[in-house]
Amino acid sequence: MARTEISTLGEFGLIKHLTKDLKPLQPSTKKAVGDDCAVMDFGAKKVLMTTDMLLEGVHFNLEYVPLKHLGYKAAVVNFSDIYAMNGTPTQITVSLGVSKRFSVEDLEQLYSGIRLACERYGVDIVGGDTCASMTGLTISITCLGVAAAKDIVYRNGAKLNDLICVSGNLGTAYMGLQLLERERIVAASDDKAQLAFEGKEYLLERQLKPEARRDILEALHKAGVKPTAMMDVSDGLSSELMHICSQSGVGCCVYEDKLPIDFQAAALAEEMNLNIVTCALNGGEDYELLFTCSLDDYEKLIPIDDLYIIGHITNPEYGCNLIGRNGEELALRAQGWNAFNQ
Amino acid sequence: MARTEISTLGEFGLIKHLTKDLKPLQPSTKKAVGDDCAVMDFGAKKVLMTTDMLLEGVHFNLEYVPLKHLGYKAAVVNFSDIYAMNGTPTQITVSLGVSKRFSVEDLEQLYSGIRLACERYGVDIVGGDTCASMTGLTISITCLGVAAAKDIVYRNGAKLNDLICVSGNLGTAYMGLQLLERERIVAASDDKAQLAFEGKEYLLERQLKPEARRDILEALHKAGVKPTAMMDVSDGLSSELMHICSQSGVGCCVYEDKLPIDFQAAALAEEMNLNIVTCALNGGEDYELLFTCSLDDYEKLIPIDDLYIIGHITNPEYGCNLIGRNGEELALRAQGWNAFNQ
Repeated sequence: MARTEISTLGEFGLIKHLTKDLKPLQPSTKKAVGDDCAVMDFGAKKVLMTTDMLLEGVHFNLEYVPLKHLGYKAAVVNFSDIYAMNGTPTQITVSLGVSKRFSVEDLEQLYSGIRLACERYGVDIVGGDTCASMTGLTISITCLGVAAAKDIVYRNGAKLNDLICVSGNLGTAYMGLQLLERERIVAASDDKAQLAFEGKEYLLERQLKPEARRDILEALHKAGVKPTAMMDVSDGLSSELMHICSQSGVGCCVYEDKLPIDFQAAALAEEMNLNIVTCALNGGEDYELLFTCSLDDYEKLIPIDDLYIIGHITNPEYGCNLIGRNGEELALRAQGWNAFNQ
Repeated sequence: MARTEISTLGEFGLIKHLTKDLKPLQPSTKKAVGDDCAVMDFGAKKVLMTTDMLLEGVHFNLEYVPLKHLGYKAAVVNFSDIYAMNGTPTQITVSLGVSKRFSVEDLEQLYSGIRLACERYGVDIVGGDTCASMTGLTISITCLGVAAAKDIVYRNGAKLNDLICVSGNLGTAYMGLQLLERERIVAASDDKAQLAFEGKEYLLERQLKPEARRDILEALHKAGVKPTAMMDVSDGLSSELMHICSQSGVGCCVYEDKLPIDFQAAALAEEMNLNIVTCALNGGEDYELLFTCSLDDYEKLIPIDDLYIIGHITNPEYGCNLIGRNGEELALRAQGWNAFNQ
């Protein structure tokens, strides 16, 4: 039998390949694979569903990630997917695969993080599964949410001349990971080494304890703005922009000097000899909201805190491009994290 | 810090410990942890949710489980949880953790089994997550279902003098596993060995490709019987009966000579020097339906195919007991599989 390496398809290619030709059987299925969440219609409101799996050694390293933070993050990244459809997360189930290395106290720590996230975002833990694993820790969380049908924002609604907006800043979680990784190596070679985290706490926080941008949705709602397309930035801006453009059948133009970049992240990138723009475009795990909205909403967007207009939607022939500081045009590439290539 | 081994609590104890004091925050949460599914109210119908994680080396051994069968089973066990609440499964999400050992063709096989199960049971695949793992294969499936509020059957409704019924037969999937394990060892020591599966195909089928008992629910519905309490038998009859009794605040009495046992299973147990009654009480993965219903429904139950009345509900002081063939009374013990003790 033929053997095709998974790395030749990548994560998105693989999912596409495995789910091609799927036809909905249930009238309640309104949107299946291909967006941040699935959408179901069970009555008055629409139900959103998303799921995320985290594996030790792939998605997290317990040498520098405290279990409570890990639990918090595992829950929040799911909430972020529900918000990215303009919904409200309501329930999660939590499945854990746990090796003997972990004690009940360890799992209490993990769960306390999950519970804290749930309390903060008003979400219920309604079930799950806990089983022994041969090696390491596996966390799989599935989240339900609700939204009125008219409020849901998909990835495929971006229109010519729409503004492209992003919240917060980009590449910061990635720089936090670089910092943790660097200090881990230092600590491993010299156990008396002072870890150089001072003045860089924000980078750590963005990597270890991200928040979902509920506040941005509330501000948009208050301002009377409904995005035309939206995603959360989990695999890097380039990759997400290309999803929105390909699903909406449009192109885009974003400006390097408009990308929101945190100064701690920029300073560390300089120190580590990394290009911060590349980090902002391709670093993952920011969990910021990326959306497009009508040019008519421009005035309403301006007063919203921590929100940045970074470009606009073009016709599809233009492709997806970044305009550099000197006016040069660079095609965006989806370098988004392909774990099958590591 | 104190270190408590997870094995001291067991799976159910651990889940109870981690989820104690959870208070619903969402008005749509009607039932959280503690039954086959969570129950949510999003409008006209109630939404059920269940999740199940399968880990290589713990829940399955790819030396004798074909990937297509594994996919089929991983989906069906989730459907079984929805049926066990008297609901209809409607959507699943599929998360996979996959090491480099697996090719795209392997995942196609796995997915073809999941898709076959979904087609047979009319369920949609609406999302998921596929990521690289360091070792082995991890499958986490979450299933949604629907039911009218009046139709949902919980574990806590069993009443004094209710009949206890079970579908199909018990211990058969466990005997299938014993057979596969025996032949695996034979094959490992002699690669020319003829595997002794002839006349035992049904045991393999029950282990490798279980079905959820939608047919039993349809028959009950047709007969006008609504169970008072229900579960699916995934961890062994004893364990499940004790769940129903403790949650309903009752006791039970079941009869050894009423337990439905398949003749192939009995023959293999004899051959392998195992007690088939112990296997029927404690073997897992039967995915049969166990339910209680009113004594008034007795006449309606009799014509239903493949359904067996095995005992009745008593007052709680009596405890949970098995009446042996010679009239002796034995307290049931929940020996259900505790993977943390393996």
